[in-house]
Formats: sequence, structure tokens, C-alpha cells
Amino acid sequence: MTASFARRLNGMKASEIRELLKITQQPEVISFGGGLPAPELFPIEDLKVVMADVLDREGPRALQYSTTEGHPGLREAIARHLNSKLGTAFEASGILITSGSQQGLDLSGKVFLDDDDEVLCESPTYLGAINAFRAYRPRFVEVPTDDDGMVPAELDRAIAGCRRPKLLYVVPNFQNPTGRTWSLERRHAVLDAAARHGLVVIEDDPYGQLCYEGTTPPALASLPGGATVIYLGTFSKIFCPGMRVGWLAAPPEIYEKYTLVKQGADLHTSTLAQHQILAYLERFDIDASIARIREVYRRRRDAMLRALESEFPPGVSWTRPRGGLFLWATLPEGVSAREALARALEQNVAFVPGSSFFPNGGHENTMRLNFSNMPEERIAEGIARLGAVLRELCAGRAG
Amino acid sequence: MTASFARRLNGMKASEIRELLKITQQPEVISFGGGLPAPELFPIEDLKVVMADVLDREGPRALQYSTTEGHPGLREAIARHLNSKLGTAFEASGILITSGSQQGLDLSGKVFLDDDDEVLCESPTYLGAINAFRAYRPRFVEVPTDDDGMVPAELDRAIAGCRRPKLLYVVPNFQNPTGRTWSLERRHAVLDAAARHGLVVIEDDPYGQLCYEGTTPPALASLPGGATVIYLGTFSKIFCPGMRVGWLAAPPEIYEKYTLVKQGADLHTSTLAQHQILAYLERFDIDASIARIREVYRRRRDAMLRALESEFPPGVSWTRPRGGLFLWATLPEGVSAREALARALEQNVAFVPGSSFFPNGGHENTMRLNFSNMPEERIAEGIARLGAVLRELCAGRAG
Repeated sequence: MTASFARRLNGMKASEIRELLKITQQPEVISFGGGLPAPELFPIEDLKVVMADVLDREGPRALQYSTTEGHPGLREAIARHLNSKLGTAFEASGILITSGSQQGLDLSGKVFLDDDDEVLCESPTYLGAINAFRAYRPRFVEVPTDDDGMVPAELDRAIAGCRRPKLLYVVPNFQNPTGRTWSLERRHAVLDAAARHGLVVIEDDPYGQLCYEGTTPPALASLPGGATVIYLGTFSKIFCPGMRVGWLAAPPEIYEKYTLVKQGADLHTSTLAQHQILAYLERFDIDASIARIREVYRRRRDAMLRALESEFPPGVSWTRPRGGLFLWATLPEGVSAREALARALEQNVAFVPGSSFFPNGGHENTMRLNFSNMPEERIAEGIARLGAVLRELCAGRAG
Repeated sequence: MTASFARRLNGMKASEIRELLKITQQPEVISFGGGLPAPELFPIEDLKVVMADVLDREGPRALQYSTTEGHPGLREAIARHLNSKLGTAFEASGILITSGSQQGLDLSGKVFLDDDDEVLCESPTYLGAINAFRAYRPRFVEVPTDDDGMVPAELDRAIAGCRRPKLLYVVPNFQNPTGRTWSLERRHAVLDAAARHGLVVIEDDPYGQLCYEGTTPPALASLPGGATVIYLGTFSKIFCPGMRVGWLAAPPEIYEKYTLVKQGADLHTSTLAQHQILAYLERFDIDASIARIREVYRRRRDAMLRALESEFPPGVSWTRPRGGLFLWATLPEGVSAREALARALEQNVAFVPGSSFFPNGGHENTMRLNFSNMPEERIAEGIARLGAVLRELCAGRAG
């Protein structure tokens, strides 16, 4: 007898990135595919100290069940850290520890979305958010973006066409997949629209602290204007992703709902990981560690931009991100990034075709390139190989 | 502007147990409330060895993102462990690592349940499952159980009254909350009914290895009969709960759907925790550790049964579990366990009123008592205090 699945599975498919990750684990592959941090920067020696220390000092408590909201000390430390960086005024009581910020996205869908509710998002937007929200069967409404972020007039137009606009999902800093950062003016304008239309803003900010030029603009959650903003953050990009610890900050009446659905989803995030991260924050200087990460990634970004200049054929354009892990390239109309990927994989080079980042499809001539996970010389080599593939494809199209 | 939440939140409320946990963290409270393992049995020294070892040998990999399915070596080790204990024939490729088995419940709801689908379950059943499934808006159909487990004739009757029966959720070993264990005959009969009606069986087995008398009967997943069985397990009760690592075993076409929804839910379970548990399993003897847990819990169960005999008033009955963490007491009709809890808390004694474990409510005269978390002398003291409360309440009712 065949099992009958829930209707929500009809629209869901495996993330191309996660599938790609399996291939790119082979050491000979030069991967611009996943959004992997550089593992050589993980603070392994510091973690050894911290882990022994946590087990010595508070082993029985750190290995036991704990409350859904998370470790009070860690919530306090996160609120303090964010307020000092972002100009926010978060209180510890408004911080919920999540199992990575991916869980923050899933819980957001669960708390807010009924079938056919509308989620407005940047076009393109983060694939993991599409996958998380898709389980709650919304309609995705893509809002055009340019180098300054979401375009307010386009947002107004999109809202006017909605029947039940519910969430506005955005990544204002060093966006995944484009690397773009919103201007302050756009932040105000979009928040204003959200407030006027009663949209809940999900501000996803995994990369805000990875700024390589100038400073990161203020978080939406720090700006006035009366919009409801849920702020999502994570230790994945500033510490390590393998422990799966993130957080969200929400106003009290909404916080309570998130806690409720998190309880049903996994009771709570690893007690041990929370104790370990708190001990790390107390004992070591995470800001110094983030500064090291920034320095390495800035050099890798520069290496990729240099290689693109010299290796990619005319007709291909790309973004010049001021931070984060990704840049975004657009091939000439009619040149398929999927075809390019097939040929690049033969040369042991991987990236993610851009169409995955458009919830309603299309844009087959776009690609996302990650620059955080490979050393500079492999970036140069990989872009050279990829450039050759693209030259061939572009020539084929011209011919 | 007030945020408008998804309809699914209407039926959801915070778990009484999780709320109670916050109170019972005070050391003066004798808690029979949560289902907490005994923290003094956590293998802290062994874990210190393992953690240093994992960071030394495979730090960069253990702290990085990994695949949704989980660590191949850990999946292999779990399949082997289960097959040796349960008589199952699981393959590593059918094991999905989950963030505690609570996540296995949430994912089960997500994979199978549309609004108003029916979930059949034991009456009473595990509160965490009710909370996880409730988010997918099913109807709960409670099936009467007795000391041998779910009653097959009652199951047939319940199915006949259903419109879209989908899942059959069961805890056949040392059930939470009753402590009851299903006979082999019942297992066959219920599986047979599930196969006839195309129900997917969710077999939740956190306690199967905590058997204090005789042997645990075969897992449903090991028995023939053609029913589709999803088997859920966890390290929480045989190792420690604070790392939040569990698993599920599912047939291939169903496994694929679980992987898909887990990807959207949290990408994957902690890479580090998976590496650590695998290293523990390779280096230390978990069976010896489980044997120590069994020995301690058996004595605590005995202490509680002795105390109940001498302290609880006539008219109160209780189960005599052969394993697990819980027993279940029934007060005379009209005596409220909630009232008893209020008075017991004044005496610094906590337990969970039984009505929480009935998805459709009622049964106000029942209570769940946990015996794994308190040493024998505190069990005796706590049950003495609770007995005094109950004698008072029962006398009040007679008067």
C-alpha cells in the first residue's frame, strides 16, 4: 500500500545546493557552490578549552533537557552583542535560541502562514527561506531589487496585487544570493510600506558582521517607524555552522507564539552547544575572531573579482559585494547557467545556478558564486576554468 | 498594528510539562514532573575524552555544515545497534538523524498530515506528540488501551468512525505517560489493522532499552504483516538529552520526503554532536552504560512503588511498569489532579496532571509520576508528602 503524503509536499523539492554539497565534498572539486565558511578559521583550540571547562563546571546541567527559550545567559550575551553592533534595543527576554537560523525561517512560516497567504520577498531571494516557507503553502510574490535593495515603488505595486499579504522576507545586508546591501533610504521606505500595510518583516541577517568596506547600515529592527520586525541571526557565519545555534528577536506577543511552535518542533536547541558558546563568548574575544574572518574573506572576494575581470567573457556582468559570502553573475540572455554547471562539473568546478533563488522560476542565465570557502589560488584557478566554459557557451550562442 | 497569526496556532498551547520544568529547577522541589534522566549518570568523563578527540582528529569537518541525512558513520552505527537489539533489519540508508525524536514527530506531521486528517493514538498518549501534530491541524482519535496496550477491537471501531485516517501514533514500550507495554499479540493485531486500512504507523520508542524485568517485546518495525512503520528513537534516554540527537527509520520513498522537510526545518542536526556521539560509540561501551542506567532506574521504580503502597490512600490505583521512566495513577472519580498539584507544589512536590495526555481532554483524576530523576530517599519523601495531599483531598470528597 502506498503512503499518501500531505499536500504541502507537492510544491517542495530538494535544495539544489544541498544536493550539490554532496558532490563538492570531494577534495578535487573547486566549489563556489555552498555557502560554507572557511573551516581553517574555526576556533578549534579555543573550543577544546571551552568544552572541557563546560563539562567540568556544569556537565550535568549542560547535558540535560532545558527550557525552550534557551539559556538565559546566552540570550543575555546575544542581546548585548547585537545592541552594541546594530543600534538595536533587544532585551534578553525577546531572544529565542533556534537550531540555526534556518529554524527561525521554518518557525516564522509556522507562526504566520496559512495556505495562500502571500510572502513578499526580494527577487532573487535566499533558497533556504523559499524551502522553509514552501511547507506552509504560501504564494511567493517577488519584488524587483536593484543595487540599493528592494525598490519601494515596486513593493507598493506588489502589495496592491496581493489578496492576503502577510510576511515581507528580506536579507538587507550582503544578500544571499546577490551580495547586495540596501541603502539606508531604502530601509526606511520599505519599513514604512510594511507598517502601512501591516506586513510582518522577517529580517534575516546572517552576514551583517562580515563587512569588508565601510560599515554595515543599521538593522531594520533598529529603525523607528512602527513596523513589526522579527530579526534572525546565527553563529554559523561568525563562529561555526556545525553546532546549529542561531536566534531570533521578536516583540513579546509574537515571541510567545514562536516559543510555542518551537516547543513542538524540537523542544529546545542543544543545551550543551548553548553552554559551550556562552563559555566561548565569556572567555575569548569573538570580535577579534570575526575581524580575522573578515580579513580572509575580503581577500578572497578581491581574488574572485580580479579573476572575473580577466577570465569572464564580455556580456557577463556581476555584483561587487561589500561583504558577505556571495556574488551574483548574469550571463547573456539565452545562455544557460545549468548548462554551464554541467560543463563546469566536468572541470571539477561547482556553483549554484541562479534560477533556484527565484521562487517562481525563470532567470536561467544567472549564477551564484561563493568566495568564502576556497583559498585565493583555487579561486583564481576555478574562475579561469569557469571562464573558459562560459566563453565557449557564449561563443556557441553567438555562432 | 497587531500581527495576525496562522490558524494553526488556535489549537496550540504551551506544554504543561515544559512550564512545570521551569518551577522544578529549584533544588528544594522534589519533582516527579518532567521526564528527566538522572544527570549523575551522564558519562561526563568519557565525553571529555571524546570531545577533545573529535576536535583533534576532525575539527574542521565536525564544525562545518553537513548533509541533511546525517553522518554516514553514525547512521551505520545506529542501524547496527538497533538491529542487534530489536530484531529489525534497518539499513544505514534508511536512518535519518533528527534533532531529538521530538523533531521526528514534527516531521511526521509535516510529511503526512493535511487539515482534518485523523491521527489515531493511545488514550492517553505522549503530550509532545500531541503538540507536534497539532500544528498540522489533524483530528485526534483516542483509542482505548488497557494493560496489554491498544485494544484491537477498539481500534477497528475507531477507524470505522474516521473519514481520513492517516497516522497511527503509538509508544508500545513502557509508554509515556502510563508505563504500559504492549503484548506481542496486541502488536500483531494492531499492525494487521494498520495494514488493512493503509494507516502509517509511527512507532515512538525512546524507552525500549530501559527494561527492568524480562525482555522488551519485538519492535513493531521488526514484525511482518506489510504495515508501513516509521520507527523513532533517541539518544536522550540512553545517553543524554542535552545534545538533541535522535533518529528515525523509514522505507525509501518515505525517507526521501522526511529528508526534504528536515532540510527546510533546520538543514541538518548538529554535525559536532553527531561526530561526538559516533566517537563515543566507537570508544566506549554504551551497552554497559545503559545497564547502569537500568539498574538505577529499576531501584527508583521500586522505591516509588513501595512508597505508593504505604502512602497513597485507598481508592487510588496505579500502573506497575516493567521499564521506562513513568507510572500512572488514577484518583477516585471527582478528585482533581490539578487541585492535588496546586497543594503538592505548596509542599515542594511536582508531578504532571494526566488530562494533558488526552488530546481531547477529560480524565481530570489522573496523574503521571516520573521516577528516574530523584534519588530513592527523595522519592520516598515526595510520595509521603503527595500521599498526605491525596488523603486530604479524598477525605474532603467523602465528607
